[in-house]
Amino acid sequence: MLKATIDADIFRESIDAIAALVTECRMHVEADHLYTRAVDTANVAMVSLLLKKEAFETLHATKEELGLDIAKLKNMMGMMSKGDSLHLNLPEGGHRMEMAFNQYRYAITLLDVNTIRKDPNPPTIELPGKIVLSGNALQEAIKAAAVVSDKIALGIDPINKFFYMMAEGDTDTIKLELSQSEIESITLVEVRSLFSLDYLKDMGRVMGKAEKVEIQLGVNHPVKFSFDFAGGNGHIDYLLAPRIEAE
Amino acid sequence: MLKATIDADIFRESIDAIAALVTECRMHVEADHLYTRAVDTANVAMVSLLLKKEAFETLHATKEELGLDIAKLKNMMGMMSKGDSLHLNLPEGGHRMEMAFNQYRYAITLLDVNTIRKDPNPPTIELPGKIVLSGNALQEAIKAAAVVSDKIALGIDPINKFFYMMAEGDTDTIKLELSQSEIESITLVEVRSLFSLDYLKDMGRVMGKAEKVEIQLGVNHPVKFSFDFAGGNGHIDYLLAPRIEAE
Amino acid sequence: MLKATIDADIFRESIDAIAALVTECRMHVEADHLYTRAVDTANVAMVSLLLKKEAFETLHATKEELGLDIAKLKNMMGMMSKGDSLHLNLPEGGHRMEMAFNQYRYAITLLDVNTIRKDPNPPTIELPGKIVLSGNALQEAIKAAAVVSDKIALGIDPINKFFYMMAEGDTDTIKLELSQSEIESITLVEVRSLFSLDYLKDMGRVMGKAEKVEIQLGVNHPVKFSFDFAGGNGHIDYLLAPRIEAE
Repeated sequence: MLKATIDADIFRESIDAIAALVTECRMHVEADHLYTRAVDTANVAMVSLLLKKEAFETLHATKEELGLDIAKLKNMMGMMSKGDSLHLNLPEGGHRMEMAFNQYRYAITLLDVNTIRKDPNPPTIELPGKIVLSGNALQEAIKAAAVVSDKIALGIDPINKFFYMMAEGDTDTIKLELSQSEIESITLVEVRSLFSLDYLKDMGRVMGKAEKVEIQLGVNHPVKFSFDFAGGNGHIDYLLAPRIEAE
Repeated sequence: MLKATIDADIFRESIDAIAALVTECRMHVEADHLYTRAVDTANVAMVSLLLKKEAFETLHATKEELGLDIAKLKNMMGMMSKGDSLHLNLPEGGHRMEMAFNQYRYAITLLDVNTIRKDPNPPTIELPGKIVLSGNALQEAIKAAAVVSDKIALGIDPINKFFYMMAEGDTDTIKLELSQSEIESITLVEVRSLFSLDYLKDMGRVMGKAEKVEIQLGVNHPVKFSFDFAGGNGHIDYLLAPRIEAE
Repeated sequence: MLKATIDADIFRESIDAIAALVTECRMHVEADHLYTRAVDTANVAMVSLLLKKEAFETLHATKEELGLDIAKLKNMMGMMSKGDSLHLNLPEGGHRMEMAFNQYRYAITLLDVNTIRKDPNPPTIELPGKIVLSGNALQEAIKAAAVVSDKIALGIDPINKFFYMMAEGDTDTIKLELSQSEIESITLVEVRSLFSLDYLKDMGRVMGKAEKVEIQLGVNHPVKFSFDFAGGNGHIDYLLAPRIEAE
């Protein structure tokens, strides 16, 4: 059972964050929060999203698992305006959820959760390098790299004390170095991994709206991006597997 | 013969209203007004447009029938700016019309009216249900329905006293109910018909700019949308045939 | 050797002006200026661009010839913001140029100049008709003509004292006449030539930003458009061959 009211923009940000990686997902409803964890079809990237009870205007819920058609919800979002309140209503054991805003009442059929991939296990990896910077700076760096290449190296230079990203194309390269004064914080350990820009561009569009994003890096390890939204009552983690550096 | 000056925006609205249904039309010129009545190629929808003498800055005309290439006129509109005055000039018996604005003078060859479908007869149907609402609310409702379906039911619920629209897709539905306080007026008779959203979306873009639109409905009958423009000196009627409701 | 700093917008305007005709060019670097002269692949249009030392914030250079991939530079421009300073750095004899702005440092491989067409000879033609008008008025006229045709005649009517452009399509024509009061200056000699709108549309987008453009015309001769940018420290000439008027 789910009966909730939420700001349309918070709902939109949640859907957009998931849509960067998957077109459908299992949304877990609990009495005091909602969460989802989903992996893209190629098993390269993972999104975890948490919406605390405080992110809602009202939330009355019992344990439930919803099969969401993310692509369809994105379409529906287009009808909502800034400041709208969205009412969600799913009866006990029901599989049609009512979504109401303004005078509109949509009834959408949920997907059968058994047709959706099971939740991935959260990986237990140690990522010693941590950088905190503005989401906008991160997104701009990803766009700048995409001009010359389809992959990007992210790393920390502990001696010269900066976070760097570097992309090499066939003929051109780009390098961005952000020193301690240009970012919020950095741990000075030597880390570096290479990633596909395909995934990062989609994540970048979402992360660009975050005030600050924490990046966690290792040596040829996945990268983890963590950021809050909904005034700190929503949280998103993206995890992206590394690419092998060509010799 | 036609020698007229008209505000570019009024001319643009007229062309846009016709362009929602047809790519060419017969424009009837009379001494004190212009009008057109045209049916789309599938015989499903009809547009009637009237421009009174008062809609023009100046109008000197004798009875004439112009073959207009609506698609071409739309292109030309792109060159006019808000506030421009458009001068139309067609000599007696001529088939090249001069259209001048700013320093530009276009001379366009009119279509041979004999190659254009004859005017349809205005249907004489009784539509007992009448609703008046803002053009914007109507357009928004059409867009909201298009998210889940390709057809929409419009109707009046005389018991609960509201105007409703309802769209059912394969898996999802949307319902919008507007009570008396949310619309300008309503006649409380039971009516309901189903329509193709394909046509309504194009009409909706035009109607969305109207301050208010009168909707006339029956039971499995056509719908008629009527609205003014050009400060009440222009008038448009759209008529759309119903679709058969599947059992 | 080239070591220079330039306002990102001035660099962008330079690249855009060249990109209207070619995708690569030879940029000649001299101690106190940069210039390029390039012809499009069909040998119909030529662009000459000059950037004086004063157009740069700083310029230290020795004679050099750079092979520029204009299409790639245009992409890179997308990353620069208004007000950014762009730093260019090419070591003596190097063929990788560093382009730095904000915290970004791109290293781009220059093209081998021997693979790029040699500079065309500047044609020595006498064009007696001269008109000076705003770049915006010129661009609007080109757009208006493109609605009805793919070629445009430009000329001066010395008797009625106006500059005109005229385009004839299969069924429609457009004429624009600008009298002396509507343009900056005009020489009252009889000239007229016909040009392809394909080329003019691309040039028009660049010229539309110029405060004023000088047009030089003859009788069935090329047209020359000249205008300044970068506060008078940059200069562009476009030369376009005429089309033969059909009988």
